[in-house]
Amino acid sequence: MPVLGQNQYGKAQVRLVRVARATRTHRLTDLTVSVALSGTLDDAHLVGSNASVLPTDSIKNTVYVLARERGVASPESFAAELATHFVASQRPVRRAVVDVEEHLWERLGDHSFARSGRETRTARVCREGGRSEVLSGLTGLTLLNTTDSEFHGFATDPYTTLAETTDRVLATEVTARWRHRAERPEEIAETDWNAAYADARRRLLAAFAGTYSYSLQQTLYAMGSAVIEDLPGVLEIRLSLPNKHHFLVDLSPFGVENGTGDGAVYLAADRPFGLIEATVLREGAEERIPTGPAGP
Amino acid sequence: MPVLGQNQYGKAQVRLVRVARATRTHRLTDLTVSVALSGTLDDAHLVGSNASVLPTDSIKNTVYVLARERGVASPESFAAELATHFVASQRPVRRAVVDVEEHLWERLGDHSFARSGRETRTARVCREGGRSEVLSGLTGLTLLNTTDSEFHGFATDPYTTLAETTDRVLATEVTARWRHRAERPEEIAETDWNAAYADARRRLLAAFAGTYSYSLQQTLYAMGSAVIEDLPGVLEIRLSLPNKHHFLVDLSPFGVENGTGDGAVYLAADRPFGLIEATVLREGAEERIPTGPAGP
Amino acid sequence: MPVLGQNQYGKAQVRLVRVARATRTHRLTDLTVSVALSGTLDDAHLVGSNASVLPTDSIKNTVYVLARERGVASPESFAAELATHFVASQRPVRRAVVDVEEHLWERLGDHSFARSGRETRTARVCREGGRSEVLSGLTGLTLLNTTDSEFHGFATDPYTTLAETTDRVLATEVTARWRHRAERPEEIAETDWNAAYADARRRLLAAFAGTYSYSLQQTLYAMGSAVIEDLPGVLEIRLSLPNKHHFLVDLSPFGVENGTGDGAVYLAADRPFGLIEATVLREGAEERIPTGPAGP
Amino acid sequence: MPVLGQNQYGKAQVRLVRVARATRTHRLTDLTVSVALSGTLDDAHLVGSNASVLPTDSIKNTVYVLARERGVASPESFAAELATHFVASQRPVRRAVVDVEEHLWERLGDHSFARSGRETRTARVCREGGRSEVLSGLTGLTLLNTTDSEFHGFATDPYTTLAETTDRVLATEVTARWRHRAERPEEIAETDWNAAYADARRRLLAAFAGTYSYSLQQTLYAMGSAVIEDLPGVLEIRLSLPNKHHFLVDLSPFGVENGTGDGAVYLAADRPFGLIEATVLREGAEERIPTGPAGP
Repeated sequence: MPVLGQNQYGKAQVRLVRVARATRTHRLTDLTVSVALSGTLDDAHLVGSNASVLPTDSIKNTVYVLARERGVASPESFAAELATHFVASQRPVRRAVVDVEEHLWERLGDHSFARSGRETRTARVCREGGRSEVLSGLTGLTLLNTTDSEFHGFATDPYTTLAETTDRVLATEVTARWRHRAERPEEIAETDWNAAYADARRRLLAAFAGTYSYSLQQTLYAMGSAVIEDLPGVLEIRLSLPNKHHFLVDLSPFGVENGTGDGAVYLAADRPFGLIEATVLREGAEERIPTGPAGP
Repeated sequence: MPVLGQNQYGKAQVRLVRVARATRTHRLTDLTVSVALSGTLDDAHLVGSNASVLPTDSIKNTVYVLARERGVASPESFAAELATHFVASQRPVRRAVVDVEEHLWERLGDHSFARSGRETRTARVCREGGRSEVLSGLTGLTLLNTTDSEFHGFATDPYTTLAETTDRVLATEVTARWRHRAERPEEIAETDWNAAYADARRRLLAAFAGTYSYSLQQTLYAMGSAVIEDLPGVLEIRLSLPNKHHFLVDLSPFGVENGTGDGAVYLAADRPFGLIEATVLREGAEERIPTGPAGP
Repeated sequence: MPVLGQNQYGKAQVRLVRVARATRTHRLTDLTVSVALSGTLDDAHLVGSNASVLPTDSIKNTVYVLARERGVASPESFAAELATHFVASQRPVRRAVVDVEEHLWERLGDHSFARSGRETRTARVCREGGRSEVLSGLTGLTLLNTTDSEFHGFATDPYTTLAETTDRVLATEVTARWRHRAERPEEIAETDWNAAYADARRRLLAAFAGTYSYSLQQTLYAMGSAVIEDLPGVLEIRLSLPNKHHFLVDLSPFGVENGTGDGAVYLAADRPFGLIEATVLREGAEERIPTGPAGP
Repeated sequence: MPVLGQNQYGKAQVRLVRVARATRTHRLTDLTVSVALSGTLDDAHLVGSNASVLPTDSIKNTVYVLARERGVASPESFAAELATHFVASQRPVRRAVVDVEEHLWERLGDHSFARSGRETRTARVCREGGRSEVLSGLTGLTLLNTTDSEFHGFATDPYTTLAETTDRVLATEVTARWRHRAERPEEIAETDWNAAYADARRRLLAAFAGTYSYSLQQTLYAMGSAVIEDLPGVLEIRLSLPNKHHFLVDLSPFGVENGTGDGAVYLAADRPFGLIEATVLREGAEERIPTGPAGP
């Protein structure tokens, strides 16, 4: 007899825009919200009874109602409110994971805005067993250094043809997520998450721009360390950094020099790409325990 | 016997990054370049003779060599140089259309950059019969007004259920392309295309933000008119404005009011969407003649 | 004073699924429908009067009602009915262009289906001045020949390094659109468009597979000619064929031969790609007149 | 002092096409391969020493050389060979995870092919500590039942407005991954992975089509159980099933009935969507241990 293992369900990608109009200068909040619930759902899988299944349509409605009634002070606080709501109000729910993506806009005027970029701010709150794990993050932040990047002294094998370099373009598209110390509702409610986010993002940018790099691994560690060292409320940060390769174009067949000097031209490649991933932890902190089905 | 009609060929999406390092503060240019050539290519289609076909690989090489040797003063000037090159150097080529997309970065430091958004600046130069048509444009510019938008007094038919509104969110993702008066190589070389682009973009933003709108058509015309009226070098502008619908969520089943006041929540819909397209012309200017196969 | 040029508006990407359940074996029709209307819309643009503007929401409703009441015999006939409806029922509308994409499914059982591929069947009907232009087409059809493709004898210039080849992989992703002779409503209603589509698609596949190719241009012309020669109801076909380059990987640095023999490995490149576009016409037929704003 | 936690690096998305030409009827294999290595990489992160870092460029070369020399009997066996190669040949590497996506083609002729759909077959092999975990899977398989799906008797809360239904369209896009018993190289080499894949896929399709469903959870469990019950070599299967909602369009404002009978029309929604995820295990089997950084 097959056994039901870990499972969860919920509503993914609820698109929510909220406009604060109390003052002449309006404020705009643009979110995509996903909720995943798990708990005692065996009957739904095994015998077709839905008595423990709150419809995902109700989950969607709840996202809109809470945004209307409670507001969205920050992606983290809104995710925490939603997670607490589902665990508190639905007896079969043991764990709620709420993911919020915030799409960023810049102000053009009192009531006019322009989408500002491909970068997305993210928040995830996982509530289970009376505590809430709060994660902040970002994705789609593309960074590039035109110099101060070397790569040499690497291992070689019979399939190695890569030349060593002492000056290359280094580019990546940052995905990062960092875990906070705060776990109790009061702590979460008292934290200024927007300021905390701005602080962490500033460290990531400064570490990328300021690190003289011998590998993308080293740059990754510098970025993670900057956050851990400067922000005592952060216990752990995970970074995923694709190496967006920029190859110097070989123009020697045309008698044209194309070294690394002024005016060098590069081919920005799509695929394949290097991919560097690591966690940087505060000393004594435990690595985050994976929560729930990680997807297939 | 089937007849060969309009035809063209070329290389699409050459990814080119150029770094200017002559000064301590580096400059970065990030382009995607496409080239389409047409002319006397009947033999290639009809009898498999490639004597008139310059390989698309050579086209790609040319893009890199010209960028290295001549630099990229602006997308428009680079497109013009490429278009002139192909028509001048390849006898069978009667027309060259060069499309340049510029991906925008913001400066983080002397040699560090972050990709700035989903907006892309575009340029197209079509060279044929001794003249070059220069088009500037942009795509992916998403704009939103939280108020000053009404929609009522519209036509109705038996399938109309839409309620009239005097206060709605108006959002769109602008694609625009405008045609310049300059056609002769000297004019094109003497123009400051970067300043011209900034001028036009500023008009588009200001007109979107500043127009009290009774329809997206009206906003479109206001945007186009602002460019035509203020910039004497522009003869024509085409705009394509999807109406990115933001629907007020009906929270009345939950006893929650969600009018257009403070804190209203909206569903940002993906599909379907309204789509408004039009050309605005300087008086006396001719509408642009479609050039080449428009694609199937 | 700026002048309003060509313009149109409508609803894009209405997602419509229809289930025929009259027999035990259900039938599924999965469409994405877009409608663009043009006519006397100056007031909407110039003075904010919407009296001639049927809301795009009504257009969407009409798509659903007609599908429910009239059924969808074929994408072409459904597009024709919609186009006729808008021109006939809305006085300000002079031209209606209806685009239908059909997403294909294969049958798994009486009432079970699986999506069958990335290929999409398309239809476009443009109704104006009492006649309806009917276009059928497809997009996303990816084809590959592992041999019978050469490329040599091409033009060269100082930037040419490409080697000639007498045996290469030839791959493309076909976008095609062909125009039919039928224009009067009765003709359109009497035609079996599904059979006509299958006929044309079969010719395209056979011509791609059966042509010994000296260039993608030659293959394109062979594909277009096969349709024109065999199908007397087709006046014109346009093809857009990206050359999906497959490069032999150079394994000589590792002492490994990788010729074109058995077991050769190729790098399937994403960008840049060659792009070949042409129209093939029945003798005496006119090339299709571009209709409406082609988009910026 | 920040501490380095779990980490890995490698090359993602190597595009590889292999053509077997030994017989008149050619065979085509189209893969995207990603490799992630982990082990003793502290120095790379902490002090900028690359002595333990095999360049990702070498990883890419290895993928091509092994494909050329050893062939690709199946995605699973090729992934296993690559994983074994990296652990065996690179002393610092403790674990190698190799992901292979196979893009499917159908035959048009002896040497002609057409891409067959959006479905991708996947394989993952994780080699660590002398054993290899083999996972097979698929993604992008979109399925739909036009009837035999109910949803009622669900939990309700104050935000529930969903109506109960006894006849709805049920559609999903299957992502599945299943883990095999085989772990030793000889077992892996002796298994016919292509037949095993076809067996599992057939069960998934039959269970989706044949289950009278009271919820997508129930359908998911039926699909997983069919694989576990029928295929003794499979220990565990994970499924991720988005609920691709098809909403009956309300045509009552137009006096048009649109029940679930013949000719009903549905709106196929994009977002938000329900998302159902679960693992089904063979009794006594352990749930798969998450391996490596799951990404941020």
